[in-house]
Amino acid sequence: MKRARIVAASVVGTFLILWGASAPPWAAGAETSAETDECLECHLQLNPGMAGAWQKSRHARTSPAEALEKPALQRRVSSENIPESLAGSAVGCAECHTLNADKHGDSFEHNGYTVHTVVTPEDCATCHSVEADQYKQNLMSHAHGNLVNNALYQQLVDSVNGDYVFDESSGALTVEAHDASTDADSCLFCHGTVVEVKGVETRDTDFGELDFPVLSGWPNRGVGRVNPDGSKGSCGACHTRHRFSIEMARKPHTCSECHKGPDVPSYKVYQASKHGNIYASTGKKEWDFQAVPWVVGKDFTAPTCAVCHVSLVATEDGTVVSQRTHRMNDRLPWRLFGLVYAHPHPESPDTSVIKTPSGLPLPTELDGTPAKEFVITAEEQGKRREAMQRACLQCHGSSWVDGHWSRFERAIEASNQATLTASRMMLSIWNRGLASGVARKDNIFNESIERKWADVWLIYANHVRLSSAMCGADYGVFDRGRYYLTRTLQEMKDWLDARGKAKAD
Amino acid sequence: MKRARIVAASVVGTFLILWGASAPPWAAGAETSAETDECLECHLQLNPGMAGAWQKSRHARTSPAEALEKPALQRRVSSENIPESLAGSAVGCAECHTLNADKHGDSFEHNGYTVHTVVTPEDCATCHSVEADQYKQNLMSHAHGNLVNNALYQQLVDSVNGDYVFDESSGALTVEAHDASTDADSCLFCHGTVVEVKGVETRDTDFGELDFPVLSGWPNRGVGRVNPDGSKGSCGACHTRHRFSIEMARKPHTCSECHKGPDVPSYKVYQASKHGNIYASTGKKEWDFQAVPWVVGKDFTAPTCAVCHVSLVATEDGTVVSQRTHRMNDRLPWRLFGLVYAHPHPESPDTSVIKTPSGLPLPTELDGTPAKEFVITAEEQGKRREAMQRACLQCHGSSWVDGHWSRFERAIEASNQATLTASRMMLSIWNRGLASGVARKDNIFNESIERKWADVWLIYANHVRLSSAMCGADYGVFDRGRYYLTRTLQEMKDWLDARGKAKAD
Amino acid sequence: MKRARIVAASVVGTFLILWGASAPPWAAGAETSAETDECLECHLQLNPGMAGAWQKSRHARTSPAEALEKPALQRRVSSENIPESLAGSAVGCAECHTLNADKHGDSFEHNGYTVHTVVTPEDCATCHSVEADQYKQNLMSHAHGNLVNNALYQQLVDSVNGDYVFDESSGALTVEAHDASTDADSCLFCHGTVVEVKGVETRDTDFGELDFPVLSGWPNRGVGRVNPDGSKGSCGACHTRHRFSIEMARKPHTCSECHKGPDVPSYKVYQASKHGNIYASTGKKEWDFQAVPWVVGKDFTAPTCAVCHVSLVATEDGTVVSQRTHRMNDRLPWRLFGLVYAHPHPESPDTSVIKTPSGLPLPTELDGTPAKEFVITAEEQGKRREAMQRACLQCHGSSWVDGHWSRFERAIEASNQATLTASRMMLSIWNRGLASGVARKDNIFNESIERKWADVWLIYANHVRLSSAMCGADYGVFDRGRYYLTRTLQEMKDWLDARGKAKAD
Repeated sequence: MKRARIVAASVVGTFLILWGASAPPWAAGAETSAETDECLECHLQLNPGMAGAWQKSRHARTSPAEALEKPALQRRVSSENIPESLAGSAVGCAECHTLNADKHGDSFEHNGYTVHTVVTPEDCATCHSVEADQYKQNLMSHAHGNLVNNALYQQLVDSVNGDYVFDESSGALTVEAHDASTDADSCLFCHGTVVEVKGVETRDTDFGELDFPVLSGWPNRGVGRVNPDGSKGSCGACHTRHRFSIEMARKPHTCSECHKGPDVPSYKVYQASKHGNIYASTGKKEWDFQAVPWVVGKDFTAPTCAVCHVSLVATEDGTVVSQRTHRMNDRLPWRLFGLVYAHPHPESPDTSVIKTPSGLPLPTELDGTPAKEFVITAEEQGKRREAMQRACLQCHGSSWVDGHWSRFERAIEASNQATLTASRMMLSIWNRGLASGVARKDNIFNESIERKWADVWLIYANHVRLSSAMCGADYGVFDRGRYYLTRTLQEMKDWLDARGKAKAD
Repeated sequence: MKRARIVAASVVGTFLILWGASAPPWAAGAETSAETDECLECHLQLNPGMAGAWQKSRHARTSPAEALEKPALQRRVSSENIPESLAGSAVGCAECHTLNADKHGDSFEHNGYTVHTVVTPEDCATCHSVEADQYKQNLMSHAHGNLVNNALYQQLVDSVNGDYVFDESSGALTVEAHDASTDADSCLFCHGTVVEVKGVETRDTDFGELDFPVLSGWPNRGVGRVNPDGSKGSCGACHTRHRFSIEMARKPHTCSECHKGPDVPSYKVYQASKHGNIYASTGKKEWDFQAVPWVVGKDFTAPTCAVCHVSLVATEDGTVVSQRTHRMNDRLPWRLFGLVYAHPHPESPDTSVIKTPSGLPLPTELDGTPAKEFVITAEEQGKRREAMQRACLQCHGSSWVDGHWSRFERAIEASNQATLTASRMMLSIWNRGLASGVARKDNIFNESIERKWADVWLIYANHVRLSSAMCGADYGVFDRGRYYLTRTLQEMKDWLDARGKAKAD
Repeated sequence: MKRARIVAASVVGTFLILWGASAPPWAAGAETSAETDECLECHLQLNPGMAGAWQKSRHARTSPAEALEKPALQRRVSSENIPESLAGSAVGCAECHTLNADKHGDSFEHNGYTVHTVVTPEDCATCHSVEADQYKQNLMSHAHGNLVNNALYQQLVDSVNGDYVFDESSGALTVEAHDASTDADSCLFCHGTVVEVKGVETRDTDFGELDFPVLSGWPNRGVGRVNPDGSKGSCGACHTRHRFSIEMARKPHTCSECHKGPDVPSYKVYQASKHGNIYASTGKKEWDFQAVPWVVGKDFTAPTCAVCHVSLVATEDGTVVSQRTHRMNDRLPWRLFGLVYAHPHPESPDTSVIKTPSGLPLPTELDGTPAKEFVITAEEQGKRREAMQRACLQCHGSSWVDGHWSRFERAIEASNQATLTASRMMLSIWNRGLASGVARKDNIFNESIERKWADVWLIYANHVRLSSAMCGADYGVFDRGRYYLTRTLQEMKDWLDARGKAKAD
C-alpha cells in the first residue's frame, strides 16, 4: 500500500504544476478538507469526469454550517446536529466516502484511509436526516424486497429473465434458472440489487497495486438497493452523483430513467400532456430549477414530476402549498401500476407482508377486492386526494379539478373492470386445462396466453390510468391504451375459441 | 354572494400588504382594467400558477390598441374594429371571461360580475377574427362531429371505449355501452367534448360560499370542443392558456399533444427527421420563436410543424413565403391519416356529410376510390402542392424537392395498395363467415382479426405515409412502418388459413 | 443560359439595395471567394434557409489557412496540403460544389460554372482527409452494399418493401417486386441509395430556363450512399448541411435519425440511461459542444454518443483520452445489432464478402458460431474493449467498470442463447414443413411465424444487448426487452403446437 502512496505523491507534484497558479475551481466557496484534497490529488487525474461533476456541485462550494444558516424554508439540509468535524468544510470525497466506516461492510484501506465505495442513504442522513427517514417509508426503498420476496412476482421474473431451451424431439420449451447477473441487468437495475462484499482483489492501477473489495450486484443505482451497511436505496438514483443537482432531480428526465417503460409509462404520458409541453417549450429554458422553496407562478408555471410528488412548493408570500416529501405516495390515494388491479395505496412500504384473505401475496384478490387490512382507509385516501388537489388548484379552478378527478377515478374503475374480464377468461382457460396455471403448480407467466393476460393489467390498464391521471391523450387510447387493451381481450377470446374447439375435437 | 365579496375584500387588504410597495409585475406594459385588477385580487392568491403564466404573457403587457399600431406583417391581431372598451387596456381576466356574456350558456354571476369559465374561439375572435374565421374552415374545428356523427367511427369508438364482459358458461365476450366520462378521457380528449351547463352548484371556497355552473364534458381542451356559446374548438389547445405564447404554438411539442400516438405519429416522425434533429440540436437554443413575421434563414433554419402548416413565413426583405393560416390543410394536397385510404383532402371541414356512391360514410370506397364530389379536385391539389413546395424550396433545390415529392406520392400509392390487399382479405373473411361484419350487423372492430385489418390502415399505412412525407426513416420501416404493415398482412393470411381450414374440417 | 445570368444580375441589384449598407453577416471572418459571392447573389434569395444555415457556420467565417494555424489538438482540418486556391477564402458554395469537377458524373454547366449537386466524402477530403480515410474503413460507408449485396438481407428487404397481392379464389398472398422509389423511402433512406445521372432536364426557374441533371436515388443522405464520383457515404448524414456544426454531430439527436427504431434502439436506450438524463437535464444547456479537443469534466460531464464512439476527448492538461475516429467500431469489441447473433466485429467494413463455412452470407452460422476468418480476433477485441473502458474510467471507478462489462458480456451470451432457441424452433418448423423456408427456396421472411423469429434477434435481442451496454433499464425488460423476447419464444411454441397438431390431424 505504501508504494502506491509514494507513486501518487510524485504524480501530484507534476499535476499541480500543470494546474498552474490559479486557485482550483472548487475553492470558490467553502474550503475542502485536507482529506478531500488528498483524494482529489489522484482522482482529478484518474476520473476527471467524476471530479468535474462534483466541482460543479453545491457540495463542492458549501459547508453544512453555511447551509444551516439559511431561513427554514430555504434550507437544503434537514439534520439539526451535523458533526462538527464535517460542518466546516465543503462536502467532498472524504466527507461521504469515509463516513460511518464501522457500519460499512465495504470499507477498505485505501491510501491510508478507510473508505467505502457505496455511499448510502445512511451516509446522506448525516445532513439530510428528514429526507432519509421519509425515504424509509417510501415504497421505492423496499423495491428490491417487494419484488424478490413476492412469490407471484418471482414467477414473472423467472419467466422473463430465464434461459429458454427448446427440445426438438419432444417439442418442449423449458425455462432454466437464470443467474444473478441477468437479474441485475434486468428487473433489479431499477429495483436495486443486493450489494455485498464477496472478497478482496488486488488490482494493478496507475498508482501501483491496490486492494479493492469484490462487490456482488455492483454497479447498481436502483431505488431499493440493499447496501453493505444494511440500509436500503440509493439517493444517487435521483440525485445523480457527483453533482447531486436539485435541478436534475426536479426535471422529469430523472424519473424517466425507471418510469418510461410500458409497465410504467409515467414519463411518456407526461411528455404528451399539456404540462409536459409547457415544460419542453418554455419551462426548460426559462424556469428556475434551483430555487428553494420552489415558487409556483414565479419559478415555474406547470408541474414537473417533482412538483406534484416530491418538492417543497410555496407561493411568493411564503405560504406552503406542498411540503417536501420523500415518501412519494403522500399525495396519492390510488396505486395505479405494477399490480393486477389499481387499489388504495398499501399501508406499509414493505408490501411483501401483504396477503389476501384467500392467501394471494397481492393487495387485491384476483377479482379486484382489496386486502383491506393492508391498504389505506378511504379517509386516508381522502386526505391524500385533497393534498394533491391543492397542487392542481394552483393553476386550475375548482370545477376543472373536480371534473378531472371524477373522470380519473372512473378510469380506474373501468380499467379494473376490463382487467376483471381478462382475469375471468384466464381463469376459464386454466380451469379448462388449456394452459397450465396455479393448479398444476406451473409458472403463470410462461405461456403466450398468460402473457396476454399480463399485458392487460401490466401494460394496457396502466396506460389507461396513468394517461387519465396526467392527461396523456393518446396513451389512454392508441398508444398502448384502450385500443390495445380491448384488442387483447378480443385476442384472448379468439384464442379461447380456437383452443377450446381444438380440444373439443 | 355578498358575503363572499366581503371576505374577499378583507383578504385583499392583507394580500396587498404582503405584496409590498413595488408595482405589480403585470403593470410593466399597458395597464390592466379595474375589472381585471379585481379578479387578480383573489385569483393571484388562489391560482398563482394560472396568474403567473398570464403575467408572463404578451396579453398582460399589451393593449389591443398598441398591437394594432404595428406594421401589417408584424401584427398579431387581425380584427379591424376592436371595441373601444377593450382597446385601451391589457388583455386580462375580465377582458376574456366576461366577453359576449349573453351568448355564453355558461355565464354566471361571480362576485358582482357576469363571467364564464369556457373562453371560446368566438371570444378570441374579438381581436383575432381572421384566424377564428380560418379555423372554422379547419378540419380540426369539426373534430368532435366528424367522429361522433360518423356511423363507422362510432363503431370503432364503441369497441375501444366499451366495457367488455365475459360470460364463462356461454364463452361470450360482449361489449356494453360506455359512459360519456370514458369518451371524454379517451377519443374526445383531443377531438373535443360537448360542454354544456347541466345545473348550478354551491361550493364552499376560501372566500365563502359561491355558486358555479355544473358543466358536462369539462375539463376539455380538444380542438373540436363544442362550446356553451355554440362555437367550435379551443384556441387554448395550441395557444396554451394563460400565457398564449406564440413560441409555444410554434414548437412541435404543442402539436405532439395529439399527434404523437401510433394513429398519427407526426411528431415522432418529425423528431427522427433531419428537421427535428436541427430543431433539437441547435434550434431550441438559438432560434427566435417570437418574431413576427418569422424570417427563414434568420429566425430559424429548419421547419417546425408550424413553419410548414400554419405560420406567416417571410424572407429578410419582407417577401412572404407562406401566409399565416389556421385552415391547416391549405398546403396539403393529400389527407394522409385517420382514414382507410389516403385521398385528396375533403372539400368541407365537416366530413360527416360525406357519403360514397355505395353509401359508406367515408371519403373513399372500401377499394380506395375517392368519393369525388366531396374531395378537392386535382387542380386544387396542384395548388396546395405548389404552396407547400414553396416552403421546401427555402432550404432545398428544385431537384431535391421534385425527387422528394415523387417518392412521397409513390408511398401514398403503395400504402393504399397494401390497404387494399388487407381489405380484400377482410372482405373474404367476412364473406366466408369467419368473422361477423357488416352483413351480420355486427360492429366491424370487435374481433381480433378485424383489429388487424384496422392496424394496417390506422397505424401502419399512416406511419409509412407520414414518414415518407417528413423523412422519418425508421418510422417508415421498423417502427410501425412497412415491417409491421407486411407482417400484419402475413398474420391475416395465417389466421385465414387456420380458421378457414378449421371451418372446412 | 445567358438569359438566366442577365435576369439574375438585375435581381441582385435590387437585393443589395434591400440588404442595406451593413456588411453581410458571412463576412465576419475570412472573406468569401468571388465565385461564392456570385452563387449567393441568387441563392440567398432563392434558398434563404439553406444560405442562412451556412452563414451561421464556421465554414462561412474561417479559411482553411486560418484553420491550419491552430495547435494540433485544436485543429478541425486534417489535410496537410490544402490547395492554395482554396486555402485563403471562407468555405462557401463554390468551394465545395465545384470541387473535383472532372470526377463528378453529376457535374453540369450552371450560370457559367461547372457545379455538382452531390457533395461527397471525396470533396470533403480536400480539407478533412484523415476523417475521410477513416470513414472508408467504417462499416457505415458500406451500408448500401452490405444490405443490397447480401442475399439473405435482400429477402428481408423484398418481404418488407414488396407489394402484397391477395387472390381471393386461391387464398394466396403473393409478394410482387417493388420499385427503387420504395427502397429509397425505406431501407436505403439510412443505408444510402445509388445516385446516378440519368439524363438532363430543362426547368423553368425564377431566373429563366436552366438545365439540370436528372439524378436517380435523389434526394438521399444515407451513410452508405454511392455517389456520382464513385465515393461512398454522405458526410451530411451527421454533419448536417449547410451549417456542418460540430455541436450537432456531437449531440445524440443526430445519431437518432437512424439509430432510434426498434431494430437499433441506441438513442432510446441512451435517453433512458443516466447518461442521457444528465445530457437532457443539465448538459444541453451548460456543456460546451464546440470545444476541440473536448475536455472531459470541463466541457461535459457525461457522454453523448460521440464521446464514446467518435470524438477526440482529452483531459484539461491535454492528455488524450480517446483519439478522434470516423471508423466507429474502433472501441467496440462486439457487434450488437442487425444480425442474427452478436459477434466479434467484422474485419472488413465490406461485409458482403463474408461467408460461413456452411455457405451462409452471415458472420455467424445459424447456431451462432462466428465465421472466424472474417471477424476480429479475441486479442483485437481486448484492445477495443480496453479503449472503450478508458472512456468509462473518466467518470467511474475500476470496480464499476469491471462489473458493468462482465454483466454486459453475460447479456450478449444470454441473448445469443435465446436466439439459438428461437432458431431451433424455426428450423423445426421449416423441417416439418409448417412453413416454407430455404429448403423450398422460399423467402424466409414472408410468413408470420418467420417474422416472429426475426423479431427475436432483429428487435428484442438487440434491445437486451444495447440496453445492457448503455444502461437502458426498461429497454432491457419491458420495452421490447426480455419480456417481449421470452413472450415471442412462447408464441412460437404456441404456434408450433397448434399447427403441428393441426397437421397431425
